[in-house]
Amino acid sequence: MQLLSTIQSPEDVRHLNRQQLNVLSKELRAYIIESVSKTGGHLSSNLGTVELTIALHYVFNTPYDRIIWDVGHQSYPHKILTGRREAMATLRQKGGISGFPKRSESDYDAFGTAHSSTSISAALGMAVVSRYKGDQRQHIAVIGDGAMTAGMAFEALNNAGDTSGINLLVILNDNDMSISPPVGALNKYLTQLMSGSIAKDAHDIGKAVLEQLPSPIMDIARKVKGHAKSMMGPATLFEDLGFNYSGPIDGHDLDALIPTLENLKNLGGLQFLHIITKKGQGYKLAEADPVLYHGPGKFDPALGIQAKKGESKPTFTQVFGQWLCDQAKADERLMGITPAMREGSGLVQFEQLFPERYFDVGIAEQHAVTFAAGIACEGFKPVVAIYSTFLQRAYDQVIHDVALQNLDVTFALDRAGIVGADGATHAGNYDIAFLRCIPHMVITMPSDENECRLLLNTCYQYQGPASVRYPRGSGIGACVEATLAAVPVGKAVVRYEAPSLVDTHHVDGDKRIAILAFGTLLHPALVAGQEIGATVVDMRFVKPLDEALLLTLAKTHGAFVTIEEGCIMGGAGSAVAEFFQSQGIYHPVLHLGLPDQFIDHGEQQSILAELGLDTKGILLQIASWKKTF
Amino acid sequence: MQLLSTIQSPEDVRHLNRQQLNVLSKELRAYIIESVSKTGGHLSSNLGTVELTIALHYVFNTPYDRIIWDVGHQSYPHKILTGRREAMATLRQKGGISGFPKRSESDYDAFGTAHSSTSISAALGMAVVSRYKGDQRQHIAVIGDGAMTAGMAFEALNNAGDTSGINLLVILNDNDMSISPPVGALNKYLTQLMSGSIAKDAHDIGKAVLEQLPSPIMDIARKVKGHAKSMMGPATLFEDLGFNYSGPIDGHDLDALIPTLENLKNLGGLQFLHIITKKGQGYKLAEADPVLYHGPGKFDPALGIQAKKGESKPTFTQVFGQWLCDQAKADERLMGITPAMREGSGLVQFEQLFPERYFDVGIAEQHAVTFAAGIACEGFKPVVAIYSTFLQRAYDQVIHDVALQNLDVTFALDRAGIVGADGATHAGNYDIAFLRCIPHMVITMPSDENECRLLLNTCYQYQGPASVRYPRGSGIGACVEATLAAVPVGKAVVRYEAPSLVDTHHVDGDKRIAILAFGTLLHPALVAGQEIGATVVDMRFVKPLDEALLLTLAKTHGAFVTIEEGCIMGGAGSAVAEFFQSQGIYHPVLHLGLPDQFIDHGEQQSILAELGLDTKGILLQIASWKKTF
Repeated sequence: MQLLSTIQSPEDVRHLNRQQLNVLSKELRAYIIESVSKTGGHLSSNLGTVELTIALHYVFNTPYDRIIWDVGHQSYPHKILTGRREAMATLRQKGGISGFPKRSESDYDAFGTAHSSTSISAALGMAVVSRYKGDQRQHIAVIGDGAMTAGMAFEALNNAGDTSGINLLVILNDNDMSISPPVGALNKYLTQLMSGSIAKDAHDIGKAVLEQLPSPIMDIARKVKGHAKSMMGPATLFEDLGFNYSGPIDGHDLDALIPTLENLKNLGGLQFLHIITKKGQGYKLAEADPVLYHGPGKFDPALGIQAKKGESKPTFTQVFGQWLCDQAKADERLMGITPAMREGSGLVQFEQLFPERYFDVGIAEQHAVTFAAGIACEGFKPVVAIYSTFLQRAYDQVIHDVALQNLDVTFALDRAGIVGADGATHAGNYDIAFLRCIPHMVITMPSDENECRLLLNTCYQYQGPASVRYPRGSGIGACVEATLAAVPVGKAVVRYEAPSLVDTHHVDGDKRIAILAFGTLLHPALVAGQEIGATVVDMRFVKPLDEALLLTLAKTHGAFVTIEEGCIMGGAGSAVAEFFQSQGIYHPVLHLGLPDQFIDHGEQQSILAELGLDTKGILLQIASWKKTF
Repeated sequence: MQLLSTIQSPEDVRHLNRQQLNVLSKELRAYIIESVSKTGGHLSSNLGTVELTIALHYVFNTPYDRIIWDVGHQSYPHKILTGRREAMATLRQKGGISGFPKRSESDYDAFGTAHSSTSISAALGMAVVSRYKGDQRQHIAVIGDGAMTAGMAFEALNNAGDTSGINLLVILNDNDMSISPPVGALNKYLTQLMSGSIAKDAHDIGKAVLEQLPSPIMDIARKVKGHAKSMMGPATLFEDLGFNYSGPIDGHDLDALIPTLENLKNLGGLQFLHIITKKGQGYKLAEADPVLYHGPGKFDPALGIQAKKGESKPTFTQVFGQWLCDQAKADERLMGITPAMREGSGLVQFEQLFPERYFDVGIAEQHAVTFAAGIACEGFKPVVAIYSTFLQRAYDQVIHDVALQNLDVTFALDRAGIVGADGATHAGNYDIAFLRCIPHMVITMPSDENECRLLLNTCYQYQGPASVRYPRGSGIGACVEATLAAVPVGKAVVRYEAPSLVDTHHVDGDKRIAILAFGTLLHPALVAGQEIGATVVDMRFVKPLDEALLLTLAKTHGAFVTIEEGCIMGGAGSAVAEFFQSQGIYHPVLHLGLPDQFIDHGEQQSILAELGLDTKGILLQIASWKKTF
């Protein structure tokens, strides 16, 4: 790492000669493998962007010129070259640097990313300001072929392609891979473009054709505006949308990248560069299995990722995946849908067993939900497996296409609540609040793995829109029964009943407390409740609430605590308070949950503890609250 | 209307001969003009789909075959031919038929629409079920060129283009017009395709070229897969995405439409038909100004829409439009953004005065918000003018791209609350709940037109994400001062202070009440409050709440009423209750607002009255609630 260690900023890269740049790329790649093997993080994607990153910082005048890394999980080389080499040791850890570009972290991070397909929109926004100010700045969006399938990217291309006088370079980093293998017509189309021989042949033919053309036809050809290019070689979809298309070129060849980028920089305007890279490039194990090496934990670079020994608790994702297969076997009407998250959402086995009922629709959350609505209209039963944070992308479709028509769609919301290393961008904090206000919507929160299965059964059998939201990782390790039986909709379970105050001769003015737990925080709440003699309820349903039970409890209890791994504002606790108020019940209600702030990356349990959502924190917060009455 | 009056269902259409179909189209067009002139509603778009509707029902076996009308404001001819001719007299009125397709209204309405660009997704969902069941059913999405610019449509095309074994016919109804004039690269591209001469020339050239080609080149040409079409004529973007493209054809010519649709029906598979229609076709006044005749109120068909006489109150939209111009004049950094709603959002004058700072990004809400974020990154000040219901389309972008980065974007949310004739699909009921849970977000609700201006000033000057949400139509008619001065963030205004109970010798146990009004319902609340001696506050801010004032009021008042034109669940009242609970204040709080149900079309004020949100209703609800304490 002799050369890499001298690089403090892109300015240093610009002083290297071309041979040194090749050395730098080798060192940078080695550094990434070493670094990620120690911290965990994204690997395959970052090995794919080593040369591109060097070439971009070499050719462009960053940070004056803006580079926006779409999704941003390929930005480690960029971080390393922009003053964060040492900080890579703290990647995705509490207080350390983020796994994604972040404006507050560096001037070189022109736009914070993490969710897919935002880069062209943001770059276009910046570009119109430069145009207005008369700045000659360049604006570069680096976007993968997976991210390009999201509608948002198309919206931005459509808008940009009609915007004159701006410098916007879109670099399509085509590695034939989103996190899951690629799907969709666009991918097939890119594969055609990408196949060097075809592009080359077509070009040769184009030339040959022109040479053979008698001159009157040439004249007409020149007059055919817009589609003239079709005559001479493949007119790409991107040219149809107003961009000047170049490529495809080898994204691992600095001798191809640098002159091409220099040309495009000099040309300015609306440029679209198609580069071909390989996920995991330069690390054989990752090249062979880029999905496995997409986001590994710590590993030994020499040995690669080893299968875990011993039995470990199944994750909620696995519980969902197993349920989906069992339910699909029992009911032919089930159809499983994922927006490009086959692995993350636990659909690998489902796809193998039920390929005809498995739908990976691409990074296309909006479409995924309305596609499900269409399926439901025909009497089939779609299950949309989606991360809580990505459902935000399909919010209108949940309201307008599913709930308003009261269609029978089941939503399996993974990564609900604190997500850990991915941080604030991926937080599943808001789903309770944003779903609760939608009429017809059933919302459930399992407290453990078996409850997850029961509530999946229940939501699936419920004839309308219903959601099960569960956190990242595993729960307490409850044994999961292989049942397809539902539980009653809107019914909670009292898990611990506190002795009545009369029996315990409590002092006057003390109140019997009930803790209403939504989701997995039931377990620390249960310990706390037993310790202080408070009734503890597993609420199961945020909507509909178990109103009958709440009324009963309100007669025998004088104060309530709600707890949930979701935002307090508008959350489940808020629902309880609204209900009590509507019934003329004015007991104190303490809301425990996630505060009104964005929560950075860190370890899930530590974050919960810091927020006072472990047993100790719950006890402290209750003790403090009890002083108010 | 001799012939039309005999049509009870599409079955009757199928028994007509081709000459009769031409008569039917004339009668249908006349009926629409007459009908809409009496009820108000969408006009231009429906005059554009008369022939298409007849042809579709003539050729296809509806309702077994599924027709999905994207947006659906062009579905009146469809409604008239499917048993709702008489019911057109009740269009968009309380208890009458909806202005959009609605599943509960007719078996012929295969999918409820209203928001743009959902049709291909829904049709694809239906198509995969038919494939699974082995049904030979046809699935037809009719989508406009405006709707085609939304990313969701692209997501669906991308997914569909890679789906084999289905019958899916996408009909692009190209009228060169969304509600506002068209924008974007796709539109330019369609204009090229649409220009018959160009398409024809290119085709001729393609043929000519082939004839001239020496045979070895022909051989290579045949081997060039995928792009072979480029050599012979324009390969369209839609072919790149896997569809079989036909067109463009004249969408007002039954002799072109019927045989083409019959062919496509027989071919099956993935078909894309490009038809050219004219908004307002057959009604000269609407043809001349399709924007004016997009959604008129009642008018005399002979005279057309007449300018309103006399002075009328400005709408909130107009107040916003004027403010935007004034603010832009004072601050060069202001940039105004609309997703294809120039007229509806009041940006017509702004575009004229500040064309360089006006951005219509197309029907592309996701992009609009992240584009604004990009602008804000460069130190400029974007104002996103968007309907409350359409902001649902950009929810993730508000969270992930704007609020998380604490970027200085002002959101002007029009049509917040009850929207009247457009009904449940367009309801602006949820924005308070779905925005309130987002950290950093400022939310304001003006109580009248002048307050709207003051809060726009305030949100604009606030250095972070902030929103002003205001209802459809006009308010009390408050005089709007031409000021650019802000009010303090998070400060409410006491509009009426009730006499203290001590002074008024109230009976023991009675409580002094404070009504906390959010938005325009301040005015009925003020009348109610004065009548019952309750303090009334114009809260101005949902977030941040005026906590200091609430604490003060809690000392002198024993019960609170919150009122808002937004959903109660998770709304502004809920915020007040959460705050009181967090402070150990356990007063009764009555939440008045919109109930947990989808609210159908009807007149705004009547709906509010029905929901108990006029003065009378407020008084009744308070009286009933007072019995609980």
